[in-house]
Amino acid sequence: MARPSAADPHRVVIVGGGFAGLNAARELGPDAGVDVTLVDRHNYHLFQPLLYQVATGALSPGEIAQPLRAILRRQRNTRVLLGEAVDLDPQRREVRLGDGGSAPYDSLIVACGSTHSYFGNDEWARHAPGLKTVDDATEVRRRIFVAFEAAEREARPDLRAAWMTFVIVGGGPTGVELAGALGEIANDTLRRDFRAIHPPDARIILVETDDRVLPPYPPEVSRAAERQLRRLGVDLRTSSRVVGVDGDGVEIESGGVRERVATHTVLWAAGVAATGFVRRVAERIGVEPDRAGRIAVGPYLHPAGREEILVVGDAAVMQSGGRPVPGVAQGAIQSGVHAARIIRARLDGEQPKPFRYRDRGEVAIIGRLAGVTNVPWLGPLGRQSGFPAWFLWLFIHILYLIGFANRIVVLVRWGWSFFTHGRGHRLITGENRLPEIDQPQPVDEPAQASPGVQRQEREESE
Amino acid sequence: MARPSAADPHRVVIVGGGFAGLNAARELGPDAGVDVTLVDRHNYHLFQPLLYQVATGALSPGEIAQPLRAILRRQRNTRVLLGEAVDLDPQRREVRLGDGGSAPYDSLIVACGSTHSYFGNDEWARHAPGLKTVDDATEVRRRIFVAFEAAEREARPDLRAAWMTFVIVGGGPTGVELAGALGEIANDTLRRDFRAIHPPDARIILVETDDRVLPPYPPEVSRAAERQLRRLGVDLRTSSRVVGVDGDGVEIESGGVRERVATHTVLWAAGVAATGFVRRVAERIGVEPDRAGRIAVGPYLHPAGREEILVVGDAAVMQSGGRPVPGVAQGAIQSGVHAARIIRARLDGEQPKPFRYRDRGEVAIIGRLAGVTNVPWLGPLGRQSGFPAWFLWLFIHILYLIGFANRIVVLVRWGWSFFTHGRGHRLITGENRLPEIDQPQPVDEPAQASPGVQRQEREESE
Repeated sequence: MARPSAADPHRVVIVGGGFAGLNAARELGPDAGVDVTLVDRHNYHLFQPLLYQVATGALSPGEIAQPLRAILRRQRNTRVLLGEAVDLDPQRREVRLGDGGSAPYDSLIVACGSTHSYFGNDEWARHAPGLKTVDDATEVRRRIFVAFEAAEREARPDLRAAWMTFVIVGGGPTGVELAGALGEIANDTLRRDFRAIHPPDARIILVETDDRVLPPYPPEVSRAAERQLRRLGVDLRTSSRVVGVDGDGVEIESGGVRERVATHTVLWAAGVAATGFVRRVAERIGVEPDRAGRIAVGPYLHPAGREEILVVGDAAVMQSGGRPVPGVAQGAIQSGVHAARIIRARLDGEQPKPFRYRDRGEVAIIGRLAGVTNVPWLGPLGRQSGFPAWFLWLFIHILYLIGFANRIVVLVRWGWSFFTHGRGHRLITGENRLPEIDQPQPVDEPAQASPGVQRQEREESE
Repeated sequence: MARPSAADPHRVVIVGGGFAGLNAARELGPDAGVDVTLVDRHNYHLFQPLLYQVATGALSPGEIAQPLRAILRRQRNTRVLLGEAVDLDPQRREVRLGDGGSAPYDSLIVACGSTHSYFGNDEWARHAPGLKTVDDATEVRRRIFVAFEAAEREARPDLRAAWMTFVIVGGGPTGVELAGALGEIANDTLRRDFRAIHPPDARIILVETDDRVLPPYPPEVSRAAERQLRRLGVDLRTSSRVVGVDGDGVEIESGGVRERVATHTVLWAAGVAATGFVRRVAERIGVEPDRAGRIAVGPYLHPAGREEILVVGDAAVMQSGGRPVPGVAQGAIQSGVHAARIIRARLDGEQPKPFRYRDRGEVAIIGRLAGVTNVPWLGPLGRQSGFPAWFLWLFIHILYLIGFANRIVVLVRWGWSFFTHGRGHRLITGENRLPEIDQPQPVDEPAQASPGVQRQEREESE
């Protein structure tokens, strides 16, 4: 074998411990004869497809996250570094870390995923959090459940309605699953939990630019999803765009008409952009990123002229069989594994194989016992909706979840929720635990100027 | 029955949804013929005795917390208010909330527990967080695991040692359990997780003013606990006081001698003080609180001359059989239930019974498979240590945990940890995820001025 000697092994640096990076690291086990350094800003691997379940109080963060060190403990050739990759020196072959340290490489795998894009309106981020990290999820969870608490305390009908309005921007899988979960929360979970408000009165608006939700799926799958969302009371706004977001509402444009919706809870599930590190890599190696900031790679997953830098997952624009590889978990997992195999093949003096994406299909669930699937290789059987889709989703997600205890615990949680309709994890944590219900009151309505218990009691006794 | 009519029921306001408040609310079910309003700053009831397990990554917050609304859903006479009680108007019989609202009462139960006391050194709080809320626990968890990450990245031995030093202030049950869990983390959980550091080298210092840990327990129980802590490598400093805390270390005084210990991780498990609301209540009704700010109550749980205000749990100084009731979960539960029974008896025109505390004993665990118990009514059998104590602890805590799914999930977690020695919930979340390893470097040591991977690699190859 043409491998480097054990005293001076080939050094692989992987930036990012998500689906792509973690699977690359696993494929580069001790038998690969390489030294691996995995750099991540978080100390855990996150099962992102279930993050919306944390945001909606169905699961706890620890149930879908696993410490990277624990996962990679047995790979003695692998070092995990908690740190942020901020720059690249392609000549010295070094990744620069935010704290002044650096990680030298012979091969680099860029697997740092993507972040949200607010389409140039970064000031919206404050009012419309996205869903990428555990902290995002606990923040979204806080906002959702604080909104119901504030509505319970609010006496003025218009202000109460604003608290009970939820706008989700983006009709992809995350947006659809969030809308479905919110529908379930309002209609089912919280149904009997309040005294002054009736949670099923909540208004859930899903805004999507395309003329249907789940645009990458076949049209009949989108239609099934829309049917199920409507059944949960979700107000679907397809062919619509959000053109303004502030603390008191959003502006929605549809067919040239603008409408203002009063709300305090806007959730962002649209727009993908590469992270700052990917943009910096593109700059340093002199390639032009695409509009989202991602780096285009060829069949061997490296940008033109830079064999030692492999870009995978959401950070890359990848092709397979002439078609773009979708930005889903499977694309990340498969490209991460393949990047590792390319490095191994080269060290073994073999010709690496070009990357081929195998479409395993997509599954999304929509509230309780319902969902849609699109699994091409199963033929017509692969397009399910309703209960079979829900069941398939459950099976796949349990299977892919990392950590045996987490699989059992999540099964217990789901089994329990199935029978009790409960969501036990709806904790409101963080700094702004208490709803700010002291809205500025118009001067000409003094009778309604003091929200609170007494006001509500008066209302209820009428 | 002498109950008020259904149209104008007796209004009970309970401030605090901890052990005392929640148990009072449960005792005042729909059959009590009263209107209950439960006010809490959080939307969940927290099983505080297990909070240190969240802080040490063994459990997730959602596994020991349950939404108050969900617990009280079926009690249609009970309203839950997310809000902070800030003031009292004893003449108008109203509790004032922080957001301008108010809650009028006929009977008031003050059950808002206690907070930390830094003995007049409030500036220590920033460097030495306590353990009262879920946010406290995730903050302590962040600090513990960031410290190991920072040590892994730090090349200078003295700075690395500071990161691997943990000081716990207070040798009561919380301090002892924290020290035990930290010992387990260092010796067991993280043993093989790092490459540059050896986690069992961590130094865990437990500081207690008294001459033994667990001062309220019998001396032989303290001795057993100390034996078990030493076996885990915990450095016990009894008859010692912390006299200074800053970002780089603590000052410990023992027998007139002061010692400075360099550390970045100080955990506060000492000192109990009443919350601001309790102090305000004392002021408004003109009673003198004790040094910790708590209100002394008689056998019917009200302060002198104020029958309609009942103070329970950690907010009160209670007596039973001439002896003070200890500030433990059982004291809170029993006094909360009893306060509700006093109100019911009065409404029924009956003479309420005086409060009698039944000492059910205490149990503490110390790391893996070890602990101490002190259960007086079991006689000599009630004083166990080691494995029997650990097993009894497990049984009692599962039994008292609220929520059936949580009981199963926590059992699965513990069972799994038992076999794998794992702590899957050691997520580092929040703003300061990344360790700040950029210590100011002395000018005369330029060779060691750049910590990072490269430095560590050089060290390891020596």
